[in-house]
Amino acid sequence: MAARKRASSRAIATATDTDTSKSETPTSQEHADPPIAPPKSGLIFKLCLFFAIPYFYLLFYHYKIESELQRSILINAGLSLAGFFITQKMIPVASRYVLRRNLFGYDINKKGTPQGTIKVPESLGIVVGAVFLVLAILFQYFNFTADSNWLVEYNAALASICFMLLLGFVDDVLDVPWRVKLILPSFAALPLLMAYAGHTSIIIPKPLVPYVGLEILDLGWIYKLYMFLLAVFCTNSINIHAGLNGLEVGQTVVIASAILLHNIMQIGASLDPEYKQAHAFSIYLVQPLLATSLALFSYNWYPSSVFVGDTYTYFAGMTMAVVGILGHFRYVC
Amino acid sequence: MAARKRASSRAIATATDTDTSKSETPTSQEHADPPIAPPKSGLIFKLCLFFAIPYFYLLFYHYKIESELQRSILINAGLSLAGFFITQKMIPVASRYVLRRNLFGYDINKKGTPQGTIKVPESLGIVVGAVFLVLAILFQYFNFTADSNWLVEYNAALASICFMLLLGFVDDVLDVPWRVKLILPSFAALPLLMAYAGHTSIIIPKPLVPYVGLEILDLGWIYKLYMFLLAVFCTNSINIHAGLNGLEVGQTVVIASAILLHNIMQIGASLDPEYKQAHAFSIYLVQPLLATSLALFSYNWYPSSVFVGDTYTYFAGMTMAVVGILGHFRYVC
Repeated sequence: MAARKRASSRAIATATDTDTSKSETPTSQEHADPPIAPPKSGLIFKLCLFFAIPYFYLLFYHYKIESELQRSILINAGLSLAGFFITQKMIPVASRYVLRRNLFGYDINKKGTPQGTIKVPESLGIVVGAVFLVLAILFQYFNFTADSNWLVEYNAALASICFMLLLGFVDDVLDVPWRVKLILPSFAALPLLMAYAGHTSIIIPKPLVPYVGLEILDLGWIYKLYMFLLAVFCTNSINIHAGLNGLEVGQTVVIASAILLHNIMQIGASLDPEYKQAHAFSIYLVQPLLATSLALFSYNWYPSSVFVGDTYTYFAGMTMAVVGILGHFRYVC
Repeated sequence: MAARKRASSRAIATATDTDTSKSETPTSQEHADPPIAPPKSGLIFKLCLFFAIPYFYLLFYHYKIESELQRSILINAGLSLAGFFITQKMIPVASRYVLRRNLFGYDINKKGTPQGTIKVPESLGIVVGAVFLVLAILFQYFNFTADSNWLVEYNAALASICFMLLLGFVDDVLDVPWRVKLILPSFAALPLLMAYAGHTSIIIPKPLVPYVGLEILDLGWIYKLYMFLLAVFCTNSINIHAGLNGLEVGQTVVIASAILLHNIMQIGASLDPEYKQAHAFSIYLVQPLLATSLALFSYNWYPSSVFVGDTYTYFAGMTMAVVGILGHFRYVC
């Protein structure tokens, strides 16, 4: 800070607005920002029901899963549910703050209609990211195994996700140029690779075995390079699909649900404890992601009352990359 | 993002300014932001010399330190030096971006003088933090020991520091209310405590031993509570001292130099490899902190051409808390 009088964000917002409507006083301006529309809870409830029934059926009845693991997943699900409500409560509050800082956008697909002139608060992904990180940190208390390798990976995951969230938010606030955007996610992916202690071999598909001459091929550092590029790819792939109300969050919700079902099926079908642990790791990170994303979705569904910002797209992409890499999804191929 | 036209930060800056001086066009406004004053490199050079001579004398001549450890410290110092130049190069660039977003302050101690009316870019701590994290992540490649406990602590440290940096930046941008400010750093400190695998006992000072009846007292969870509060205290203690040009960075530079000298002396005087490793851990994080802070100091020294923001104070405080806790400084008492 040093000795300084900070440029008041409210004063700036007011100054900006007086440019278009001179008559408003600062106080009336504060009240002039309309509250954002209420969340579409009905939609979210239906979505949840559609997903939760098969998910919990698989978890509790269909497969014989150890009660220890079931308990951990259930605690995580409970935390995630709490995270859903906290996120849903905090988004309208945070909206007021981002609007005061002029972090807003106009919905260009509604141009020409009255809705096209409403200031839509931007970068609400920061709420989702912060709640996610708090949940992920708190959850460590409930899965504190003596296995320090788990903790290495978990902390590396947190560091990577948090760094990506920071970069996304910096990008939203400062409009970082593209050449920087492409370099920085690479650094965020590094803690991941350092912590990756798994195999670097791939299984050759059966029809190709006669040609390659091997059933299992060890790729060594090329595998690490592939993972590194995967992290950068995942991050940008969520970002680049943006364009319609709810699309970024919507695709994340669909992918996260698919990952969860896949994990449960893999855990149920496997007998290898290490393999189960890897998929449980993935569940512990995806459940909070899904829950907090659903809360954001309830505001971002058409017609959007908030925008998610690069903050969310980078964060969600990185979380899914982390889950894929540290959840050791390679066995699946 | 969703379909949106982002509120251009430049347009906002212009709109704000037209309020006071209507004649400026957007282009002239862009040129109107004067470039920040050049860094005070002479001052920094003298400071560095004053510190580096005793430091490297202790490291290479005074004590017999294993060449392995010397090499790691030297690689880290080299990376830190690179970090110094990168930070110094990036601060003027980042200043333009933060000014465009209206992240600036006025120097209230220069009120009434022409300097008191200059917009000073705020929150430049984000550059220091980002460079620090990149250095810390890259350094893992040069100290990849089989000791996974080291990696747990290192990654937890990165996660904590990164989370704190994020919260600091969010605070600078959105002006978070105080009640939230006090809660969130507590969450950032949690990964630290989870990773802390050291003892929780304290040595009773000799004059008190007859009264307590013990030489070593195991505090258990109270020790963890103490560390938790220490992290929150460190973070706020750097922040709360702000008030004069260069004070936040200046105190960090002094404390960091003292920590480095202390570490070298502890490593030199000890024979316990684990103890040496803990102090080396501390050096690996403090060297980049010192180097990047010095780069910021060269701009923040009186008369300040940039302000550091809560971003820097939170980040620096947390880094030193991490170093104290995971460097196992408790042996010192």
